Amino acid sequence: MTSMVSTKTTRGASSQRRRAPYKPTTSKVARDSQEDVLRFIPLGGFEEIGRNMMLFEYKDEILVIDAGLQFPERETPGVDYIIPNVSYLAERKENIKGIIITHGHYDHIGAIPHVLEKLGNPTFYTTRLTKEIIMKRQEDYPNSPKPIFEVVKAGDDATIGKYFEVKFFDVVHNIPDGFGMIIKTPIGNVVHPGEFKFDYDREGKPKGLEVWKQVGDQGIHTLLLDSTGAETPGHSLSERVVESELEKLFKSVKGRILVGSFASLLDRLGEIIKIAEKLGRKVAISGRSMKTNIQIAENLGYLKFDKGTIVPLEDINKYHDENLLLLCTGAQGEANASFARIANGEHKQIRLKPTDTVILSSSVVPGNEKSVQDLKDNLARQGATIYHYKMLDIHSSGHAPQEELKTVMKLIHPKFFIPMHGYYFMRQRNAHLAQEVLGLKPEHTILGDNGLVIELRKDSAKLTDEQVPAYYVMVDGLGVGDVGEVVLRDRITLSQEGMIVIITTVSKQGGKILKNPDIISRGFIYLKENQPLLDDVRRKIRSLVGRIPSNYKQSIDADYVKTIIRDQIGQFLYNKTKRRPMILPVIIEV
Amino acid sequence: MTSMVSTKTTRGASSQRRRAPYKPTTSKVARDSQEDVLRFIPLGGFEEIGRNMMLFEYKDEILVIDAGLQFPERETPGVDYIIPNVSYLAERKENIKGIIITHGHYDHIGAIPHVLEKLGNPTFYTTRLTKEIIMKRQEDYPNSPKPIFEVVKAGDDATIGKYFEVKFFDVVHNIPDGFGMIIKTPIGNVVHPGEFKFDYDREGKPKGLEVWKQVGDQGIHTLLLDSTGAETPGHSLSERVVESELEKLFKSVKGRILVGSFASLLDRLGEIIKIAEKLGRKVAISGRSMKTNIQIAENLGYLKFDKGTIVPLEDINKYHDENLLLLCTGAQGEANASFARIANGEHKQIRLKPTDTVILSSSVVPGNEKSVQDLKDNLARQGATIYHYKMLDIHSSGHAPQEELKTVMKLIHPKFFIPMHGYYFMRQRNAHLAQEVLGLKPEHTILGDNGLVIELRKDSAKLTDEQVPAYYVMVDGLGVGDVGEVVLRDRITLSQEGMIVIITTVSKQGGKILKNPDIISRGFIYLKENQPLLDDVRRKIRSLVGRIPSNYKQSIDADYVKTIIRDQIGQFLYNKTKRRPMILPVIIEV
Repeated sequence: MTSMVSTKTTRGASSQRRRAPYKPTTSKVARDSQEDVLRFIPLGGFEEIGRNMMLFEYKDEILVIDAGLQFPERETPGVDYIIPNVSYLAERKENIKGIIITHGHYDHIGAIPHVLEKLGNPTFYTTRLTKEIIMKRQEDYPNSPKPIFEVVKAGDDATIGKYFEVKFFDVVHNIPDGFGMIIKTPIGNVVHPGEFKFDYDREGKPKGLEVWKQVGDQGIHTLLLDSTGAETPGHSLSERVVESELEKLFKSVKGRILVGSFASLLDRLGEIIKIAEKLGRKVAISGRSMKTNIQIAENLGYLKFDKGTIVPLEDINKYHDENLLLLCTGAQGEANASFARIANGEHKQIRLKPTDTVILSSSVVPGNEKSVQDLKDNLARQGATIYHYKMLDIHSSGHAPQEELKTVMKLIHPKFFIPMHGYYFMRQRNAHLAQEVLGLKPEHTILGDNGLVIELRKDSAKLTDEQVPAYYVMVDGLGVGDVGEVVLRDRITLSQEGMIVIITTVSKQGGKILKNPDIISRGFIYLKENQPLLDDVRRKIRSLVGRIPSNYKQSIDADYVKTIIRDQIGQFLYNKTKRRPMILPVIIEV
Repeated sequence: MTSMVSTKTTRGASSQRRRAPYKPTTSKVARDSQEDVLRFIPLGGFEEIGRNMMLFEYKDEILVIDAGLQFPERETPGVDYIIPNVSYLAERKENIKGIIITHGHYDHIGAIPHVLEKLGNPTFYTTRLTKEIIMKRQEDYPNSPKPIFEVVKAGDDATIGKYFEVKFFDVVHNIPDGFGMIIKTPIGNVVHPGEFKFDYDREGKPKGLEVWKQVGDQGIHTLLLDSTGAETPGHSLSERVVESELEKLFKSVKGRILVGSFASLLDRLGEIIKIAEKLGRKVAISGRSMKTNIQIAENLGYLKFDKGTIVPLEDINKYHDENLLLLCTGAQGEANASFARIANGEHKQIRLKPTDTVILSSSVVPGNEKSVQDLKDNLARQGATIYHYKMLDIHSSGHAPQEELKTVMKLIHPKFFIPMHGYYFMRQRNAHLAQEVLGLKPEHTILGDNGLVIELRKDSAKLTDEQVPAYYVMVDGLGVGDVGEVVLRDRITLSQEGMIVIITTVSKQGGKILKNPDIISRGFIYLKENQPLLDDVRRKIRSLVGRIPSNYKQSIDADYVKTIIRDQIGQFLYNKTKRRPMILPVIIEV
């Protein structure tokens, strides 16, 4: 009856239906047609937001783009995160000529430490900032190989293998140093613009349209386009508006300012520090990831502040409240992040005061609504004044919404269109936009799926039914890929109904019950308060085992007894409680 | 690291801090001051959305308002729903003079079958439609007492006990036959407007403002006001706009129309059927709750259709697609509801066609984002065209947003203000609105909490620190209140890390291990693929138990052995896997 189950059912059934069983590529088919075919295969990011990874394959050469992670969902309780399945690549690692990383967000770099060795440690093509963020993360994975980089920047060209010539161009996202690219291949030019939004000048005019036009002027065979914003009408809220709203707000505040945002939203963090500086506020940073990111960006010159603007968290008591701004992680209500600790009164340096103003300059990631509500409640109860993005224009998404997507489509005017990054419905919306704007036929706007091969030829683009493995690979603790369907299904069942272990000790000869059955239960009912029910279960087991025909008793058929216990006790408990705990019978023979 | 845990931590800590331990009312205190005091106690709905129930107590008489349920949260996995704690009322059931039910939504009526007997089956004061909805639900609970009703309607007065005179007035919500009320008490008039939004005429002018003015003219001591919309700026989207948008959309569709909405959104359902009728479409209803609700409302004359407009689901194949509209439940992606079955291809009568148009005329309930995304994806994959409330103005909330709340505040102009229904932050926003609009002092806008007593006197309103029990009572299967903190904590742990049961069989004399330890595990690792780890665990247990000093061995100290196993195996598994399954050691002595 709960939505936890509901979601599972809907998804399960759908993935069953939409996924044909995995058919390995017969090398014959691949060889026959490979001469003039560019194979494009998404390994993640085509049925979800996150876990972005895709590859281009031409003859014996493969070019990979991104290797991101996806955060766990309700259907994957307890796992740390989900990464793309790289089996197809691992089997062809000698063919991989390079991995391009479009920008430094975790949904584009997060899988690297887990897959690098399997891919044979090929060369990364990425920018300076992205390189440093990747390297910082590698420190946590000493067993992962040392990555090899070819550092590039917008404007550069790179020849990767014999068949791929890549031209990098500048795009605006919400982390510096991302890029888009034209991939020149034997069958034509493919554009992958990374993730982007438009930047607007003070007059509200979009900047940098000429870059997109120049890209389009090269003659584009296929455009890949992020679909995260495809359901959102209109234009991006300009970061200039966000900036000026934040400045207005900061100016109006008398006491301390605490700002929450994503640690990865480096552009915003830079803006906030600049405004603080302008208004004579020192900035202290709470949260390891945020601190690290800002430091890397500052070291490389992407963020520039006066010396002394950023002060250690330990020193905040040296400054007056009106001269302080605290940048904190945990605006999504994440456990143990700075804001959670502030709200709980457990933060080492920051005690909330009624004169504090809290500004949450980030959106709410779907699934975190309740945690953010709790965070706001807990902060509000301590008297702080709270502003969030629904109350003021203090956040803007990093993903181009409909009008910006349409502008890019027009400027690039490709022959074929593949919406990427996002759920099916979002990608379908994006495809419809392309049909409207470019007059493309539906069959020229291709709705792929993770693992499904798309074949690009000089004059065609076609979704095939050839499928490479793309099922979830879960990272849980030290395990990568060892948590599978069975373990997850058990976790979900346990969380809904709990379990009961029934241990029956019988004699090896004759199968006589030697002692009162032992019962352990968790998450089902509170045993201490339900002794009568337990007694009933014990009685029932004695009678069940007692009733087993004597010819079975010579040497007891444990599986048979277990099945009987599972069925009968299950039904008995259901009748008594209308709950269906997982029943685990154990027969101990001594 | 998952947000599941994060939420729990944040909440847990906060509720610890904000909730003083339960202090029973010393009858002395109560007697001393009861002469001139109206006690107001919310039992639910003041720290969440849902579970609405509150009471007024004057001398030896109690008036109760609503008895709703709350749907389960991530922190309460597996439970069916959460109901208000009625211990305070149960101890004083002879004092209860009546229960007023403001309208027929489950967050206002859902707890009735579970608490009615405990409350001594007092008389309900409610409208005809609400009565019928309550009675229909009672059919599922044959053991609950037969409710007693005093049917009222807007405009009526009721004298309830010696001290409460209640005048009911008309409000617009999204289910017919709700009301607000003025409760005339010895200390003054209290207004509880139920839940409402404004209705607008074709010119966009709000209707029925004179009713609110007449209420205000009576001189109001305290206004209680729903806070669900207090974070939403502006006015309600007029149902007239929704209606005309739906009509436009329906007209443009050639094939079948499938509309998803809440079964409880009776006004909208009525509108949709009227439009279908106008456009010559027959209507078939899929979903028991929706069918029942429409039937009840039609029987009572709240919804009126031509004979023959509604056709049985079994007959839909008799009509052309362009003459059909299907009303379906499950727009939130709920398992087993009509839309889930349609999306999975498991619906008995409805097979989706590419020419179908699906219209989701409801908002997404927080927490259901992912299920709705999955639903949209699965429907879209079958080629249907989908419209939802973010794409067109085809849904409007039933809860007044800021500008409407402000208008009501002005027209009622109370001396004291108590924001109700909603999370703390929402209620705080509502209080701030009242301070702005009415110039009320902050101490005259009272932010209560579930269980905290508010004392209203002729010239004052005060939040006390007296607390009555208001902790969660959970309904799970047949159990009401037997799932508590321990069971829930176990369910959450099990869902995150799984569990491992380790059964060691030892001899009663000497504590010698009699057989290789038995291990059962679920939700931790897939045992079949991890035999070496299991072998390690077994070896470790043999050595652990073997190492126990011989003086313990005479008769084994099972608790001591269990603690050792729990600690050492826990640490061992963590080192090997970085996971912390629940470890359940069992010692069988034979």
